[in-house]
Amino acid sequence: MNRTEEPPVTLVDEEAHAWRPATARARFRQGLTGPTAGVAAGHTQANLISVPADWAYDMLLFCQRNPRPCPVLDVTDAGSVTTVLADGADLRTDLPRYRVWEHGELVDEPTDVRAHWRDDLVSFLIGCSFTFEWALAAAGVPLRHLEQNRNVPMYVTSWQCRPAGRLRGPMVVSMRPVPPRHLSAAIRETGVMPAVHGGPVHCGDPSALGVADLGRPDFGDPVELEPDDIPVFWACGVTPQAAVMASGVPFAITHAPGRMFLTDARDDQYRVA
Amino acid sequence: MNRTEEPPVTLVDEEAHAWRPATARARFRQGLTGPTAGVAAGHTQANLISVPADWAYDMLLFCQRNPRPCPVLDVTDAGSVTTVLADGADLRTDLPRYRVWEHGELVDEPTDVRAHWRDDLVSFLIGCSFTFEWALAAAGVPLRHLEQNRNVPMYVTSWQCRPAGRLRGPMVVSMRPVPPRHLSAAIRETGVMPAVHGGPVHCGDPSALGVADLGRPDFGDPVELEPDDIPVFWACGVTPQAAVMASGVPFAITHAPGRMFLTDARDDQYRVA
Repeated sequence: MNRTEEPPVTLVDEEAHAWRPATARARFRQGLTGPTAGVAAGHTQANLISVPADWAYDMLLFCQRNPRPCPVLDVTDAGSVTTVLADGADLRTDLPRYRVWEHGELVDEPTDVRAHWRDDLVSFLIGCSFTFEWALAAAGVPLRHLEQNRNVPMYVTSWQCRPAGRLRGPMVVSMRPVPPRHLSAAIRETGVMPAVHGGPVHCGDPSALGVADLGRPDFGDPVELEPDDIPVFWACGVTPQAAVMASGVPFAITHAPGRMFLTDARDDQYRVA
Repeated sequence: MNRTEEPPVTLVDEEAHAWRPATARARFRQGLTGPTAGVAAGHTQANLISVPADWAYDMLLFCQRNPRPCPVLDVTDAGSVTTVLADGADLRTDLPRYRVWEHGELVDEPTDVRAHWRDDLVSFLIGCSFTFEWALAAAGVPLRHLEQNRNVPMYVTSWQCRPAGRLRGPMVVSMRPVPPRHLSAAIRETGVMPAVHGGPVHCGDPSALGVADLGRPDFGDPVELEPDDIPVFWACGVTPQAAVMASGVPFAITHAPGRMFLTDARDDQYRVA
């Protein structure tokens, strides 16, 4: 599943860190393809999934029934390529990389989906855990994937989502290694941001999630744990892509894992306390 | 709009306070009709709105776009009369009182809707602010409507919800008078429970909401303010009923305002921090 081949952008790049969201979107529209962790500090990132209107109710219900992996930030009207979350954005061009799906199979990974677009597509923008990484960093929690200049590792778990209509599938998680002395802060800081997945769904032994080998993520890059690091797992917005695969959705467009949509919304906007 | 005529139950009734949710549902199924504020301490109460499957996507999208008044706790499959939120419950019989709507007009207010039920109805259970009253009471915030043995007052505001498909309408709010020294606790305690409406949408002058007279609520009972009390307004789950009226939905069944569905879920389950 992990077909993306280009090297990641320099994730700790000071310049990308300081971009405004509109600048980031413009750069991605112009062809920059790297993962978006660390880009446009303090802003909310979003997963994208666009499905035909005939599938929109099932997808919205799937999200409602599985709010940890699928917290919905916005849903567009059918055919619209804009969102209230980002002034002047075009959802067809402004992400670094997309995935195009037919009958649950990945058929293309373009950097622009204007050629694939259909007027019956309803787009879902779903909260992304990259958003709470600013809060983690501010609380002193090390972010190993940024330190190692990699995309965050993501795993398909053995935990099944609650089905909705024709949609079913497993929960996908992202993993960040956390030193024990930082675990409390990591849980506290993320728990107050349910719109971008909230607190961890699991800490420790990956086999509880049916994950056999942390070194072989299903999406993103493997990340090395420091001695004593605890693997901490958050629900992930790639979960709808797993549902597209498991359910054989006839057509869908999504972001490529780790290549998110940059919204204008401040991360604080989704902080509950 | 305020057609309910029966006197309220004794809201501070010690017995109703201590009921388990299943006991409350059984009592309402047997014919008890009063408002549910103060019933089954520590449990989550829910608004009900059931619409034909053809309207379910618009309703779910309306809720997603208006999460303050319409936080969705569960959505049933079409025709189902059960919910994962309450073991053994029947949504057609277990609420104290219902409202039946045709083309946006209120046509009946029965205590049982088995005669009105249709197999194409999709039911939405939406968080209710009665849920956070336990937290307010524990924090020492006085609850004037309970002190005065009345249903909470609710008002149709001049604030318009974000439309979704064929649905549009104003936001409805509930009002609780809060002494200034308790305002901080009232905001803090409710802000961490977004699934049951979260923090207030407004404090103070009701004219900011287009509400002319606090003494004439659109639903529920007027409640007297003590000297210095600040009127505090929370988004209300009667908002979908206002949308049914404003949008002329061909058919709907809802709870009667203040006569909620008692779920088995603990209020703590919806506390974020």
